[in-house]
Amino acid sequence: MRDFARSKALYDRAKELIPGGFPAHQSPDLLVKGESPCFIERAKGCRFWDVDGNEYIDYMCAYGPMIIGYNNAAVEKAVAEQKKKGDCFNLPSPLWVELAERMVEMIPAADWVTFGKNGSDVCNHAIRVARAYTGRKKLAMLNGAYHGIGSWCSPMEAGITPEERMNVLTFPFNDLDALREIIESNRGDLAAIVVTPFKHEFLHDLEMPTKAFVRGLNEICRGDGPLLVLDDVRAGFRLHMGGSAEYFGLKPHITCFSKAMGNGYPISACVGLKEIKEAASQVFFTGSFFSNSEPIAASLATIEEMVRTDAISHIFRMGEMLKQGILDQARALGIEISYTGPVSIPFMIIQDKNGFEKNRLFCARAYQEGVFFHPYHNWFVSAAHGEKDIEETLKATQKAFEAVKQAS
Amino acid sequence: MRDFARSKALYDRAKELIPGGFPAHQSPDLLVKGESPCFIERAKGCRFWDVDGNEYIDYMCAYGPMIIGYNNAAVEKAVAEQKKKGDCFNLPSPLWVELAERMVEMIPAADWVTFGKNGSDVCNHAIRVARAYTGRKKLAMLNGAYHGIGSWCSPMEAGITPEERMNVLTFPFNDLDALREIIESNRGDLAAIVVTPFKHEFLHDLEMPTKAFVRGLNEICRGDGPLLVLDDVRAGFRLHMGGSAEYFGLKPHITCFSKAMGNGYPISACVGLKEIKEAASQVFFTGSFFSNSEPIAASLATIEEMVRTDAISHIFRMGEMLKQGILDQARALGIEISYTGPVSIPFMIIQDKNGFEKNRLFCARAYQEGVFFHPYHNWFVSAAHGEKDIEETLKATQKAFEAVKQAS
Repeated sequence: MRDFARSKALYDRAKELIPGGFPAHQSPDLLVKGESPCFIERAKGCRFWDVDGNEYIDYMCAYGPMIIGYNNAAVEKAVAEQKKKGDCFNLPSPLWVELAERMVEMIPAADWVTFGKNGSDVCNHAIRVARAYTGRKKLAMLNGAYHGIGSWCSPMEAGITPEERMNVLTFPFNDLDALREIIESNRGDLAAIVVTPFKHEFLHDLEMPTKAFVRGLNEICRGDGPLLVLDDVRAGFRLHMGGSAEYFGLKPHITCFSKAMGNGYPISACVGLKEIKEAASQVFFTGSFFSNSEPIAASLATIEEMVRTDAISHIFRMGEMLKQGILDQARALGIEISYTGPVSIPFMIIQDKNGFEKNRLFCARAYQEGVFFHPYHNWFVSAAHGEKDIEETLKATQKAFEAVKQAS
Repeated sequence: MRDFARSKALYDRAKELIPGGFPAHQSPDLLVKGESPCFIERAKGCRFWDVDGNEYIDYMCAYGPMIIGYNNAAVEKAVAEQKKKGDCFNLPSPLWVELAERMVEMIPAADWVTFGKNGSDVCNHAIRVARAYTGRKKLAMLNGAYHGIGSWCSPMEAGITPEERMNVLTFPFNDLDALREIIESNRGDLAAIVVTPFKHEFLHDLEMPTKAFVRGLNEICRGDGPLLVLDDVRAGFRLHMGGSAEYFGLKPHITCFSKAMGNGYPISACVGLKEIKEAASQVFFTGSFFSNSEPIAASLATIEEMVRTDAISHIFRMGEMLKQGILDQARALGIEISYTGPVSIPFMIIQDKNGFEKNRLFCARAYQEGVFFHPYHNWFVSAAHGEKDIEETLKATQKAFEAVKQAS
């Protein structure tokens, strides 16, 4: 049996000094309490080692940022090259212009680019730009969607005033009727409709957009309508190098990227159409580290490497292999599961009248077998996952399913 | 004559693709238009080289983050060590706990720590924690103070709704009467008083807090009063290793750090007193890169190196040498200047009925002589500045003052 003694000791120290103990999404309390690692020592490729020396094939990819492998040689080479020159200056480095040009070239919905650090930075910026452009205050967003820690959208309300949440309306994913009702009763007041490219909500099956929903969004957000703001922070560059709008046929005015764009280095980007550029320049947006050169070098190298190796196709192949293997195993054992979302960003829920008890059991057993899944949060597949990794993974999931079966 | 041809060409490319062209604080439009560099190629110690190959002794320190020299050997060694293991994981690395422990040990006003990326992240978090703790909505902040891009405090209002700015009252620095009036008319509604440790406002003389102001703040923010939130993002670790509260005798409940804490690596921290910890744990605060290990390794090494070398004392000595040299030169030439703020974070304004024309002239001439000051924004002195650098600087400022004299 693997144990997590050093993780637990560090966890206790963290609880002493850090309110809540952890950044929300990284809390080990959201894994399988007492049966999962809490701290990581190192990572390489699609694998990581926890502080107790346990090795895992990783299907969380740092919650999205890792896309071509931890410590990827091409990315690290580019960062090392820039590191000789430096990272944080009084002014940007030339690479900053190069990355802007590369993104505009690659992303059809990008005529301009603004860089930040966090996904939240650019989501907050996007809605301000939409409000500045339209001169309107109201926003329509998806029920339960996550757009970061901005006061308009944070999933928890502690410390946020009701006034900061005003002007934000919600509607269910894929529900055009509900959206049309919002449009009808707020005609002329709606600055933007804010969506994720597919529904990727904590604790829920993932849901792909219907063709009617995509068409409806594109039609509503035209002419004098609200702007379409696409939050592609989680999915961006895991479905299509032109952004998830290209994958689904969405026509956003403003799109937000972050996680995968620097393979783990902190960077985010807000991009938009030409007609919005002047409004974007009016919205105050800055931060001490927004133009740091190493994450920019990392992002240029990540994009280059993904294009060179056709990383997206590989990720889809590996994602499909994982999905088929898991579906087959569950079917053979008579375990009812849902396996939803794009294969590069999937999620599995084992059907269970006791909530997520079986998902927890599955994950806890997978940790013992050296594979890291999350019981409540969608998973990520990367370009560093190879066929042998998936085969090894499926040996572990077979045992995890057997444990679930046995406990039923 | 130095020229900036490559900077200008890159500037034109940037203007095409980036709304406003630059992160607000880094805009070359805020330097001396056409006569200053726009992009930086590399930096080392207290010097940088622009993309046209011009060398400068730097008094902006990346607007504060650089504290012990660009590409500092001790910091880079620690980062390289962590880099072998990786940066961005599913869970924090053990260093994350070590840094929390180090900060609590070093900063009297810190019983707990939460890490973010930007200064804005932690300032926004701090006011939410204060609101959550007190159950009150209103804030009192200093007129014209900069606390980042949060909607409650951003210096520009484009894209921000009036509702998001509600509940924020302002009062002038060092004006206890005005503050007491706010307290009187908002008794029981005030969650926090948010202050910077001294007044460091764009385009203004810097102003140190009076003893009465410090005492008054400490007295007002006691018992059932509002919390005292100290935004130490800009000044933190440039006045005192225990934070600027120690330097001035302030007793904050919550303090925000960022810029200098990682010597340029992107990291920020919100720290607070024990009684606030439970409220802090209720406020949602997370980001994909908040626990990245390299900036944490950088911060541990920066703190270590600053303590080992007594960096603060050195910075003060160099700052004093710069100040005396500049005061002497101005006096000898009969040029009237104000030289304000702590010597480690000073600002100079050449008195001029035409606004900042003489400051612009001074800076433009200094750029020609290889020294980088900002005409409108306070300057920073670092531990990498040595006596020879200050001497070389003073040769340049002599010529810059002479140019100012000649133009008068």
